[in-house]
Amino acid sequence: MAGYLEPLSRLVNALSKLPGIGQRSAMRLAYHILQRPEGEVRELAEAIYKARWDIGYCPVCGDYTAGDDVCGICRDARRESDVLCVVRDPRDVAAMERSGAFRGKYHVLHGTISPNENRGPGDIRIKELLKRLQDDDIGEIILATNPDLEGEATAMYIARLIKPLGVKVTRIAQGVQVGADLEYADDVTLSRALEGRREM
Amino acid sequence: MAGYLEPLSRLVNALSKLPGIGQRSAMRLAYHILQRPEGEVRELAEAIYKARWDIGYCPVCGDYTAGDDVCGICRDARRESDVLCVVRDPRDVAAMERSGAFRGKYHVLHGTISPNENRGPGDIRIKELLKRLQDDDIGEIILATNPDLEGEATAMYIARLIKPLGVKVTRIAQGVQVGADLEYADDVTLSRALEGRREM
Repeated sequence: MAGYLEPLSRLVNALSKLPGIGQRSAMRLAYHILQRPEGEVRELAEAIYKARWDIGYCPVCGDYTAGDDVCGICRDARRESDVLCVVRDPRDVAAMERSGAFRGKYHVLHGTISPNENRGPGDIRIKELLKRLQDDDIGEIILATNPDLEGEATAMYIARLIKPLGVKVTRIAQGVQVGADLEYADDVTLSRALEGRREM
Repeated sequence: MAGYLEPLSRLVNALSKLPGIGQRSAMRLAYHILQRPEGEVRELAEAIYKARWDIGYCPVCGDYTAGDDVCGICRDARRESDVLCVVRDPRDVAAMERSGAFRGKYHVLHGTISPNENRGPGDIRIKELLKRLQDDDIGEIILATNPDLEGEATAMYIARLIKPLGVKVTRIAQGVQVGADLEYADDVTLSRALEGRREM
């Protein structure tokens, strides 16, 4: 970045820290920003700042929320409050909500158990989940962590912990992706799809 | 974006206005920003804001500069001041500078002549170029607009305008890209490469 204007190289530098944005795209974005109307650029800078400062975590489920308020889903009386869907992070809540397939409430773990990254059960929101099971009338826990090694291990751990409490614990189904070609599905996915087959 | 937090959807919306960033990547970037340390997010927002406000145009060449000062290249006494490289926009100056192949000064047109977009010679910095030719001792004008239709038309127009003034006018060479496969070069590029062939 030698020879570039300081505010420009500073911007390229900040942009290139975003995921999936290399030095080249950061440069392209920076030049774009320099050429946009002042109002549009101010809006972008403010939106970044405000999102980071105005969004906190829901004290009940751990999802994102405005400030420190209990989030909209937790407050929604029309949603079933006896089914909790346990996910890794707020992004997964958003994905579930997009599908429209779930009408219960959530519990966000903020991570998975990961020996590789030195994250144990105490480092994610499992204690908070147990507290909710104790305080509220929960009939079913759906474990919707990712179908990868860490997600599986975390689901397994929670299942073992909770089953003795007499709560029904389920795991989301694994199988071939809807709309995908069977031909390109990997071996593990295919064997899971076979294991989970249902009578028609 | 129904059901999303207002500051989050506002951020996704602002991010998705950036070139090459669709709704999905904007979402991914927004969630990333929510999870970064406060200092890093503040730095990004400020860098965007400051770059847009602290960078202006050099009154001489039209390239980006700090505030409204004459830019570093125009002020650099070690650069040849009798050769001007005419480019479309500041990005092209940056590209030229990266190559390290040019040691003269620049003139940024801020656009090309484009009948399609209703941009005539009066809408780009041609008048300012003529003024520099009048005031300064310029021996050569290198036309380095893009090798596309508009870039060619603009180069042609400027060449016709300036040649009568007795200034040497050149055009950057067009040919096969260094390191590229001849096999994949398009027809026009190949014919230009042949036309421009040199004795070895």
